[in-house]
Amino acid sequence: MVQSKPEQMSLILFSGDFDKAMAALTLANGAAGNGMQVSIFFTFWGISLLRRKNSGSDLFLEKLFKGMMPIGAEKIGLSKFNFCGIGPWLLKKLIRQKNGQTAQDLFKMAMERKIRFIACEASLKLLGIKPEELIPYERLELAGADAFLQSALESKIAMFI
Amino acid sequence: MVQSKPEQMSLILFSGDFDKAMAALTLANGAAGNGMQVSIFFTFWGISLLRRKNSGSDLFLEKLFKGMMPIGAEKIGLSKFNFCGIGPWLLKKLIRQKNGQTAQDLFKMAMERKIRFIACEASLKLLGIKPEELIPYERLELAGADAFLQSALESKIAMFI
Amino acid sequence: MVQSKPEQMSLILFSGDFDKAMAALTLANGAAGNGMQVSIFFTFWGISLLRRKNSGSDLFLEKLFKGMMPIGAEKIGLSKFNFCGIGPWLLKKLIRQKNGQTAQDLFKMAMERKIRFIACEASLKLLGIKPEELIPYERLELAGADAFLQSALESKIAMFI
Repeated sequence: MVQSKPEQMSLILFSGDFDKAMAALTLANGAAGNGMQVSIFFTFWGISLLRRKNSGSDLFLEKLFKGMMPIGAEKIGLSKFNFCGIGPWLLKKLIRQKNGQTAQDLFKMAMERKIRFIACEASLKLLGIKPEELIPYERLELAGADAFLQSALESKIAMFI
Repeated sequence: MVQSKPEQMSLILFSGDFDKAMAALTLANGAAGNGMQVSIFFTFWGISLLRRKNSGSDLFLEKLFKGMMPIGAEKIGLSKFNFCGIGPWLLKKLIRQKNGQTAQDLFKMAMERKIRFIACEASLKLLGIKPEELIPYERLELAGADAFLQSALESKIAMFI
Repeated sequence: MVQSKPEQMSLILFSGDFDKAMAALTLANGAAGNGMQVSIFFTFWGISLLRRKNSGSDLFLEKLFKGMMPIGAEKIGLSKFNFCGIGPWLLKKLIRQKNGQTAQDLFKMAMERKIRFIACEASLKLLGIKPEELIPYERLELAGADAFLQSALESKIAMFI
């Protein structure tokens, strides 16, 4: 798939589920590994993957929603059979037994492969998450839906996850 | 993105979740605002966004499924943390506090921007929803999966939400 | 849509939900019926559609996850209102009343229409599902995410379901 001008793939990660995040990161890393330029637009529950730490916030409802959202790739739940976190814990154990890649591994690989991360500004504003609460990464931008659409128009593959 | 022949985007809204509907409508409005031609194919749970009112129906199972499906953009639940409707209520309150756009605003904007709505005929038949139970909108059509596929083939972006 | 070189569509079926599987198969059959070449990449929960029978497995965690995953198109649940299997049972009853196509019908039609099935190798390995536990079908391949990406790059439509 190596070409003069690399093919592009744009993903929206709307879901904050562990299993869907792993699917998105696996596809993104596979595409980047094959020379494609990959952008992931993190929006709504997907923002939880980019969070570094909880900081003080004044609005009660913000706190409530932020409190419900997990922080980082290791804390998110499954889309099915979550069982209050037992599902993801078992899945991670199973992945370790099989020497598979964990969500954390896939997330680090995505950064090593220079995948472009876009954090949805409207979601950050709505949830009261400040830019300094996100992971440090030079390829992380804050932008709106227009940035995703522009990227998707230039892409061969655009998917909503 | 303004061009001689406008780019197209086709979305399938399968989900009836409030948060996913807002994501779909935000993308659709953004694309239409940038001069793209946008079609949304509402199918299965997504049909609930197009419902105007409940009417009498003879089949018990239809009634049961229709009774479970919410009516209109203001009544639908969240894909996560729904808590019997408390989640969406809190989210709407948060959106109001932030002066953000509500689902109802986004839905109206989509109609103002002449986004094409396609209601999946097979879903309507299955759920026993009659065309007169859907919202009045001159750009609303009833059609099958073929209409979506034809539109997707002409589109730069096609996504399943 | 009949052309010298047929258009392609590539779907990822990540979800193991009955309603989403029906949506994927309806789109796939519609596209194949219009002369398109269709590939479905079954991954994670979507693998449950391809399972034939449960076989003995040594790892406890594998057994646990495999035990949670349903087997075949008739046993999967709904993404909403599943109610411990009552939802899918009611939906199937409703489909029969309306003389609609069941998931099993759609699945058989997909095989008759020579739709290419790709079972995600990493998911099989992770869940401890052996190739001989999958349905017999000459167009079923085992492959990784790269196979999906290659297919998606050649496709007009690529969607994540």
